[in-house]
Amino acid sequence: MLGLLSKKPVDKLVELLGKEKVSLSLVERKLYAYDATPIPIERAIPSAVVFPTSEEDVQKLVKVCYEEEIPLFPRGAGSGLTGGSVPTLEKGIVVSFERMNRFSIDPDNATAMVEPGVITYEFQQAVEKIGLFYPPDPSSFKYSTIGGNIAENAGGPRCLKYGVTREYVLGLSAVIKEGHILRTGNPVIKDVAGYDLTKLFVGSEGTLGLITSAILKLIPKPKARATALILFKDLESVGKVVSKVMTSGIFPSALEFMDNYAISAVEDFKPVGLPRDAEALLLVEVDGSSQSVREDVLQVKELAQSMGLEVQVAEDEEKAEKLWSARKSLGPALGNLRTGKINEDVVVPRIYLSQAIRDYRKVAEKYGLLMVIFGHIGDGNLHVNLLYDKKNREEEERAEKAVDEVFEITLRYNGSITGEHGVGLTKRKFLELQMGEVGMSLLRDIKRVFDPKNLFNPGKVINP
Amino acid sequence: MLGLLSKKPVDKLVELLGKEKVSLSLVERKLYAYDATPIPIERAIPSAVVFPTSEEDVQKLVKVCYEEEIPLFPRGAGSGLTGGSVPTLEKGIVVSFERMNRFSIDPDNATAMVEPGVITYEFQQAVEKIGLFYPPDPSSFKYSTIGGNIAENAGGPRCLKYGVTREYVLGLSAVIKEGHILRTGNPVIKDVAGYDLTKLFVGSEGTLGLITSAILKLIPKPKARATALILFKDLESVGKVVSKVMTSGIFPSALEFMDNYAISAVEDFKPVGLPRDAEALLLVEVDGSSQSVREDVLQVKELAQSMGLEVQVAEDEEKAEKLWSARKSLGPALGNLRTGKINEDVVVPRIYLSQAIRDYRKVAEKYGLLMVIFGHIGDGNLHVNLLYDKKNREEEERAEKAVDEVFEITLRYNGSITGEHGVGLTKRKFLELQMGEVGMSLLRDIKRVFDPKNLFNPGKVINP
Repeated sequence: MLGLLSKKPVDKLVELLGKEKVSLSLVERKLYAYDATPIPIERAIPSAVVFPTSEEDVQKLVKVCYEEEIPLFPRGAGSGLTGGSVPTLEKGIVVSFERMNRFSIDPDNATAMVEPGVITYEFQQAVEKIGLFYPPDPSSFKYSTIGGNIAENAGGPRCLKYGVTREYVLGLSAVIKEGHILRTGNPVIKDVAGYDLTKLFVGSEGTLGLITSAILKLIPKPKARATALILFKDLESVGKVVSKVMTSGIFPSALEFMDNYAISAVEDFKPVGLPRDAEALLLVEVDGSSQSVREDVLQVKELAQSMGLEVQVAEDEEKAEKLWSARKSLGPALGNLRTGKINEDVVVPRIYLSQAIRDYRKVAEKYGLLMVIFGHIGDGNLHVNLLYDKKNREEEERAEKAVDEVFEITLRYNGSITGEHGVGLTKRKFLELQMGEVGMSLLRDIKRVFDPKNLFNPGKVINP
Repeated sequence: MLGLLSKKPVDKLVELLGKEKVSLSLVERKLYAYDATPIPIERAIPSAVVFPTSEEDVQKLVKVCYEEEIPLFPRGAGSGLTGGSVPTLEKGIVVSFERMNRFSIDPDNATAMVEPGVITYEFQQAVEKIGLFYPPDPSSFKYSTIGGNIAENAGGPRCLKYGVTREYVLGLSAVIKEGHILRTGNPVIKDVAGYDLTKLFVGSEGTLGLITSAILKLIPKPKARATALILFKDLESVGKVVSKVMTSGIFPSALEFMDNYAISAVEDFKPVGLPRDAEALLLVEVDGSSQSVREDVLQVKELAQSMGLEVQVAEDEEKAEKLWSARKSLGPALGNLRTGKINEDVVVPRIYLSQAIRDYRKVAEKYGLLMVIFGHIGDGNLHVNLLYDKKNREEEERAEKAVDEVFEITLRYNGSITGEHGVGLTKRKFLELQMGEVGMSLLRDIKRVFDPKNLFNPGKVINP
């Protein structure tokens, strides 16, 4: 039952934290060894799962584990797609932050204090009730946690206009090597005092220490939204429209793209009346005052029509919901096509999008796989989905090989292997290609500064 | 003439870079030992001033200096206020980036490549001509450089809505230890691959390496602007109005504050008809579509009037210019009052602003000094100006002591000692108070990772 963790440190932990915060049950240890990564990855049943309820608990835990050299695998909701929260060493302990889920909002200062286990959606609902807004919206936001979002620097459709999670984290408390408590930042927007350790921690995937609380920036909640849906007969025009919209004085709050395969998948699953012969569609959402959204969405319509494109417009949120239903039913629609799905989150500079999409499709052809592409085209972030039959190991392997080529193409176009999901375990070898030798050596050195014994989420981001 | 720099390395540099890029003239060496810091600081005549014109030049320079252990002091326009670009060692070389001032804009990708010596204003003009926008607007923007702005993570009034310089830097090239070239990021908005070295470099004040180019994010240029001016009889109401505006669905593009002394200074210098008995004024700028700015500014007016406050509204940019003239004449108006001015850029959480302002004023009383406060109140960033007679050394010393107390008050309110100007030389001792021991030790370790010989801007930010 105790796995490889010797009795002494576990006893110490139980003694320090209380029995109800340290689980040694095999069932729980097995459960907490999984996340949402779709492909087979390195994985170990951890020796324990710990559920801290305070920073003090985390500090005690880290002190013991740093003395005893026990690896720590922090975990939010386990919704990650790259193995970021998966334990890989039997000696390791999973640290689940689900019980640290308090938050407080300061409306007058437009900031909030959050613990890592807060569910992003629940926090957002509370914030919007008082006229404020916390924009980051990864598609997991209804169940993923703020702590996980910070660790992975989560994005989402709104990040085109509003920026990713990193831009909303003003400060952090974290427990680092030997149980030291690091406090960075303040509940203020501007702060140029010293190197920005806050932003360095964001996106570090749990490898620098354990975040125990964060100060988040809130902004005014936009009063209204409107949406235009544009249909395309060729991919080139998509880029042209995006570029024209972005230089017309309109700042869309979302610019979502679906390719022909995505359109067909939706129509197969639950028809919403999209033309199956369209090469692609674009959803352009604008937000702001009620008058400006109407003005903006009509301007988008005119602009697209002047290019001979078919446009539908929803001037209010209710009508917009209908247009967005196609995008929102993509998840189940793809599940309906095949049992297995690898959803990559590559990013290419917008100017190369149509070329990159063509190259990605050639990979799908080469490996005889079904590929569906959609994503946040305004920021060049594409979800390239490779579909396969889960029971067919040979097909799964082909999908894994295809993913490698998708990354290679992405890097050729000066892109990034990950815009939202992080590196975790699955993208480590490509990180080296993207960062280069000088960059990788700095990453390793920085890791050592925060975690000289390599006990915080070891083996993630950086190859051991 | 050669100072303490032995002939050998200088000869090497002249040979490697060409005579026209290496100045040994005493006049030039003296000129480049100054920046805009208003108080007496540590300063040395450098042994040479080097003017690289390419990354290759910078690499050659760093290689030689890393071998010969010669400190390098990077410099943009020298408009910094905390001694960030000032050489402090006679052996040192000033690296002036003024000849590396090329840039290219990619409108379809909404990004730009810039060299560090580009003047921010010139770049912004070129960007706005094609319907795009680069928001960061430090008050020095007409002469300061992008490289300096990046090194100091420059802010400005618009940063309330649009974020500081850091949020616009997508990638960097830099020369670090031993002449290694580091390339970070890509011309894409989303990138969560590895620790964010780009954001770490921004605001590091030249202490981690020499930036040779940057990839900047551009956004759509807002179509219109409008402004409201609100007059206050007490400081408490200012905070209330700010909070009400920020939760009303309006996101102001600027929220500028002037206290009673600032109002009087402007009226003494060049009357614009402001009531001298007003305790404070607030300029609220909104931007967006032409209809929305009208809608928003009228909403601000109603909101303020419902609180019994006096409001003037300018629905277009021309009328707005008139309202802004008071704010813009503050610089010369203060110069008119006294010959010396220490302009600090403290930040306090918005909720503590009125209390902090009261405490700052007590410091002015204690030291018998004239203090004028204005600033970017939306983000809690206040410019606390201590005025004195430059010829009166005793008064100058009182002003320096008063500044120390201003910092202490700021930290007491969970604020930051610098929202815009950086730490440089003048704020080092307060950085330690703000960061704490754990944070400072990480800063030192990170510095060593990038610059183990402590040759990049040594002694800045971190005490030697």
